Amino acid sequence: MRFDGLKGFRDFYPAEMAFRRWIEDAWHRASRAAGFEEWDGPVLESLDLIAAKSGAEIEGQLYVFDDKGGRRVTLRPEMTPTLARMVGARAGGLPKPIKWYCVPQFFRYERPQRGRGREFIQWNADMIGSADPAADAEVIGIALDALRRLGLGPEDVRVRLNDRGLLKRKLAELDVSGDDEAPVLALLDKLRRDASAAAGLEELLGADRAGRISTWCREFPRDDAGELAPLLEACGEMGVGDFVEPDFTIVRGLAYYTGPVWEIFDRKQTLRSVAGGGRYDGLIASLGGPELPALGFGMGDMVLGEILRERGLEPPASPRIDTFVVPIGEDMLAAARRVVARLRTAGVSAEAPYRAVNVKRALRAASQAGARRAVFVGPDEWAEQSVKVRDLASGDERTVSFDDLD
Amino acid sequence: MRFDGLKGFRDFYPAEMAFRRWIEDAWHRASRAAGFEEWDGPVLESLDLIAAKSGAEIEGQLYVFDDKGGRRVTLRPEMTPTLARMVGARAGGLPKPIKWYCVPQFFRYERPQRGRGREFIQWNADMIGSADPAADAEVIGIALDALRRLGLGPEDVRVRLNDRGLLKRKLAELDVSGDDEAPVLALLDKLRRDASAAAGLEELLGADRAGRISTWCREFPRDDAGELAPLLEACGEMGVGDFVEPDFTIVRGLAYYTGPVWEIFDRKQTLRSVAGGGRYDGLIASLGGPELPALGFGMGDMVLGEILRERGLEPPASPRIDTFVVPIGEDMLAAARRVVARLRTAGVSAEAPYRAVNVKRALRAASQAGARRAVFVGPDEWAEQSVKVRDLASGDERTVSFDDLD
Repeated sequence: MRFDGLKGFRDFYPAEMAFRRWIEDAWHRASRAAGFEEWDGPVLESLDLIAAKSGAEIEGQLYVFDDKGGRRVTLRPEMTPTLARMVGARAGGLPKPIKWYCVPQFFRYERPQRGRGREFIQWNADMIGSADPAADAEVIGIALDALRRLGLGPEDVRVRLNDRGLLKRKLAELDVSGDDEAPVLALLDKLRRDASAAAGLEELLGADRAGRISTWCREFPRDDAGELAPLLEACGEMGVGDFVEPDFTIVRGLAYYTGPVWEIFDRKQTLRSVAGGGRYDGLIASLGGPELPALGFGMGDMVLGEILRERGLEPPASPRIDTFVVPIGEDMLAAARRVVARLRTAGVSAEAPYRAVNVKRALRAASQAGARRAVFVGPDEWAEQSVKVRDLASGDERTVSFDDLD
Repeated sequence: MRFDGLKGFRDFYPAEMAFRRWIEDAWHRASRAAGFEEWDGPVLESLDLIAAKSGAEIEGQLYVFDDKGGRRVTLRPEMTPTLARMVGARAGGLPKPIKWYCVPQFFRYERPQRGRGREFIQWNADMIGSADPAADAEVIGIALDALRRLGLGPEDVRVRLNDRGLLKRKLAELDVSGDDEAPVLALLDKLRRDASAAAGLEELLGADRAGRISTWCREFPRDDAGELAPLLEACGEMGVGDFVEPDFTIVRGLAYYTGPVWEIFDRKQTLRSVAGGGRYDGLIASLGGPELPALGFGMGDMVLGEILRERGLEPPASPRIDTFVVPIGEDMLAAARRVVARLRTAGVSAEAPYRAVNVKRALRAASQAGARRAVFVGPDEWAEQSVKVRDLASGDERTVSFDDLD
């Protein structure tokens, strides 16, 4: 009987796994370079916790069920509720600012499409306890540091930056507030990628006000963009200024953002966003955590993977085996195993065939494994506790004592 | 409002996460040293696939539910069904032997107790396509290689080794076969840790046959143990012979094992097993995969964690930050950010405060972060594009040009 994997879930064969680990490794290195510490939480959380942040209507997009103890539980769709829960449980004892990152897998019951599955890996980095714009720049900086380590530059990706405080003040100037604010923000969010958004704005606000908002968004008025100057300057000092540009249409759908918000897109903006983040000063407290300023971002592996593949970027070749050990005849099998064990203990990846094979076939296997060298274990050398080591690129061969092998 | 995590699930704060990564890192390194390639599959699989291996009765121990598309799905309790599914889908195209490993998280709805939660991380390494006893020794060898990298030796852990083929032949000699075989195997499995198992054997087989089986198991008869000799010898050649001893009570509950079976225990056997594995030649085909000999093992993080903590073994200290950058006065904040960015790009973890602080307080922060050195960015040096670098252990200080900083 044949079985299939579930739709929207991925099988990671070794090649796909190496690609995933290459991305994750850049995330780990960028995080640690900035002094962020890794954490993780449960894959399963109570629905109450998730709904406290996102509202009960999120249940429709979740893998949610009753466990055998009758608890309503869900596969995690994001990390912030868990972050608030864990920081809340130990807030007093944690030095501030808390700089934490994680590389969890998330689950959402959505229609699979390009750059979106029902599971994905997402790098999260959050800082709790600093209200300084330099903290926002630092967080933007590490997101870009990871992308740079993967080979992407300002010609490939852009950070589009806005400020929710500025946006709200501007809308108030244009007499948009109260009940109108949320739908206007939702339409602004779509203005660049959805032609119907402009019409929607006009319907909601009338041609005059809608026109003024659209114009304002398009023209990045110098005076207003000036409010973002301290953050833009800090980004420049952090060495990522050329990635960043103000964009008043960046809203970040979620209600809880309070300050700077930003998204990273591929330069031509043909795909969904690679990453998104911002400042969410009140959220941790509303989820039972401490009253502390906070900010952070998430970067998924799927849109990023599309961009990397499109650019022809891929992980550096990583041979399966460094040293292929060749027993010369059946009698040398045991000796070959000793050589293999010695190399592995010395930190060298090594392998020998389980049965004696001729040298030609052994060298073919060595080449398939990407081996850098072959070690021949023959009766004459072994009688003197030595082996022959051949560099497979140059063909150079030398005799090495077993005790010196590494 | 305060929320709790689910019972049996773990919160990994940075210290617990570092401990988990230390274990996982040993697993990765041992796997790669032996030329195993990493893979992964979905956290969620169809119940049909899991039940095809373990029988429908396993549903009682699973996190199982109907998804929004009406599929009966389950959080994965193990990896072998997914392995069979994925190898089956590409069997023809994969060079043999297939040497794959993974470090997935598993989920079982069981009563949490010492060394057992409702989720755990488990290293799996499997080899498909070799029937050679040297392959069994290699797989045992990499399990022990990882334990050795974590600081455990033969005085801490033992591999208890048996052979299901030998066991079945021995039971047949004692007239145990057919319907009696499965319950006798189950009782043998408990003989060392459960006093009632001996009584159970007696009840089932009568005093005479039960006594002969118990004696046989206790006394490791030389002739029978000799059947394990080629494998024991290969283990010796792989450098792990002193960890391994024959034990005729090792059964591995699961029906599908066909050859050598083994479990790793703490030396005094006070805890559940650290790892268990064996040869399961028919299983992959029965799950829709190819007809190939196969073997492998699983090693969880929880019992292993107990043993490591009991021995006082823990990950090497890993400072959060290598270099703490200290701006001397408000005017130097921007310059300090430039220094931080330069160091991070050079691969050094670095951090600066967001506001000017006095030197004493900065050095306290540097020490809390475990920093190796401080870089002072003061107006006089900066005017000449230089900074002062202080080694925090020796107190030695020198002036370094910004362009030479790394």
